[in-house]
Amino acid sequence: HRELKLFSGTANPALAQEMGQYLGIPVGEATVSSFSDGEIRVKIEENVRGADVFVVQSCCQPVNDSIMELLIMIDALKRSSASRITAVIPYFGYARQDRKDQPRVPISAKLVADLITTAGTDRVLTMDLHAGQIQGFFNIPVDHLYAAPVLLDYITKKQIADLVVVSPDAGGVERARAIAKRMQASLAIIDKRREGPNQAQIMNIIGDVEGRSALLLDDMIDTAGTIVQGAQACAEKGARQVWTACTHAVLSGPALDRLQQSCLSEVVVTNTIPLKGKELTCPKLHVLSVAPLLGEAIARIHSEESVSSLFA
Amino acid sequence: HRELKLFSGTANPALAQEMGQYLGIPVGEATVSSFSDGEIRVKIEENVRGADVFVVQSCCQPVNDSIMELLIMIDALKRSSASRITAVIPYFGYARQDRKDQPRVPISAKLVADLITTAGTDRVLTMDLHAGQIQGFFNIPVDHLYAAPVLLDYITKKQIADLVVVSPDAGGVERARAIAKRMQASLAIIDKRREGPNQAQIMNIIGDVEGRSALLLDDMIDTAGTIVQGAQACAEKGARQVWTACTHAVLSGPALDRLQQSCLSEVVVTNTIPLKGKELTCPKLHVLSVAPLLGEAIARIHSEESVSSLFA
Ligand SMILES: Nc1ncnc2c1ncn2[C@@H]1O[C@H](COP(=O)(O)O)[C@@H](O)[C@H]1O
Ligand SMILES: Nc1ncnc2c1ncn2[C@@H]1O[C@H](COP(=O)(O)O)[C@@H](O)[C@H]1O
Repeated sequence: HRELKLFSGTANPALAQEMGQYLGIPVGEATVSSFSDGEIRVKIEENVRGADVFVVQSCCQPVNDSIMELLIMIDALKRSSASRITAVIPYFGYARQDRKDQPRVPISAKLVADLITTAGTDRVLTMDLHAGQIQGFFNIPVDHLYAAPVLLDYITKKQIADLVVVSPDAGGVERARAIAKRMQASLAIIDKRREGPNQAQIMNIIGDVEGRSALLLDDMIDTAGTIVQGAQACAEKGARQVWTACTHAVLSGPALDRLQQSCLSEVVVTNTIPLKGKELTCPKLHVLSVAPLLGEAIARIHSEESVSSLFA
Repeated sequence: HRELKLFSGTANPALAQEMGQYLGIPVGEATVSSFSDGEIRVKIEENVRGADVFVVQSCCQPVNDSIMELLIMIDALKRSSASRITAVIPYFGYARQDRKDQPRVPISAKLVADLITTAGTDRVLTMDLHAGQIQGFFNIPVDHLYAAPVLLDYITKKQIADLVVVSPDAGGVERARAIAKRMQASLAIIDKRREGPNQAQIMNIIGDVEGRSALLLDDMIDTAGTIVQGAQACAEKGARQVWTACTHAVLSGPALDRLQQSCLSEVVVTNTIPLKGKELTCPKLHVLSVAPLLGEAIARIHSEESVSSLFA
């Protein structure tokens, strides 16, 4: 029987720690630092020969460092004769560059998938990909989890009678619909249109939010522009309460200021990306842990059981 | 006949510009920037269909960003139907992690070679690799240039009669010997030894430096520890002048202070890595351009001529 080992990069060590607790194993000893010139220095400090190794690394900012660190750790583990290496990537970066939406642009999400494979990864465990199609960019097995059970659990406990789940754009309708169905809540969609060049964007809401608790649902909050605009539109259409639940708290640039100054009453996120005290600057943030979900998936992958019942 | 096109990443645009001037072509239009969350954004702004494309990108600091940028540019060029893509990497990073000198470490130089190939590179043009063996990490053609002709030209013009070329450690002897031979100068080697744990390092010099102009020769100056220690040893052994010539000016951490405070009278480097005004803080630095050498190599690769006469 192959021993289960869990390692962590520097992107999200707290999440890895929590996953280790769930699994009842310590996070493996590894030096992951940098040399004076910024090159990453990795040394696996314990024997992994023949082990079933899981490496936890989110594509957190600085994203290129996080990716290179993951690749170099995988290279080191491979050369240390691990029998199987699973890259656990709670937040998969470069996911928005997943198609040629204009001429002569890269498909960086496919590139990153290829890089991960090239480094020697045997399988991938990830969560709420920006587009499910990214699974097909890999030629190795991918287990794709949804954070929905964690979000749903929290939202349901609030027992909100007049909830409407709102997709902030047309691209997120499927995701919002799945949650709305599970909550037996109604669905609304924000339809942004620009009538012509240099004209302000008009926000139409398809569906009814008036007098209701409007929950904006998305896979990530990056600069928070989309979410805050959507929240404003819901408030203007008479929602009695506007809040949001998003899996990945990218929170770059003006995000925190925008959220704090917005009409959003609560911003629910998960710890796929570490908050690093942002919840103190922005008390609207409420963080849920996906560690038990990821931990359970690892336990099942290790014991060759199906993880499909986790795809709730 | 395939058109020659030259593109540049953000690592060393001045060098690319100079190479373009040598070749008589402009650097191609490309947007290379980042999104708010630090993900790299690339768009090739001109047609490259069927072209013979050269992308100039050194592994400058921040090194992981430079590498990812190169990979994403190559992905974009490949998807824009360039007929051949050559990665021009004047300074190849992660080159010191080129073997397992202890258990459970990566061979990052091999990983980087694999990443470059995976992205869609057809060939590589590089300069003064830390170890020549790194050429073998690639399964695509590699043209490996030496900066020696550029350094030699500058050194020779000084007409120093009593020159001794000094290798700062045993690993650099071959490089120093080649230059010494071409200069008809003598050779010396610094042999660092630690007699026991917690004992100071002793610097022995094999060869004669007394009363001579000692030129320390190496492939790179990183933190400048090795070079400055070596310079001190030469001065103590009675060298009348101590200076250094190194191809790659990594210059991280305490390097500039160390160089400025050392007994070195001149620090000759090339522009494989941009100096970014460091020569103003440290007036001992003298920068030579490798642009004509790289430009000539590109011209020959493009016209399917041999570049071997450049390996002087
Ligand atoms: N890191 C990023 N930040 C903001 N926009 C991005 C990023 N990466 C890609 N994009 C752009 O986002 C768009 C796709 O996003 P989406 O329609 O939400 O899938 C494309 O136009 C991309 O160029
Ligand atoms: N970026 C770096 N900065 C300093 N040392 C490094 C770096 N990368 C690798 N090394 C170490 O340098 C040693 C090899 O250097 P060398 O003997 O000069 O080839 C190995 O022990 C490496 O762990």
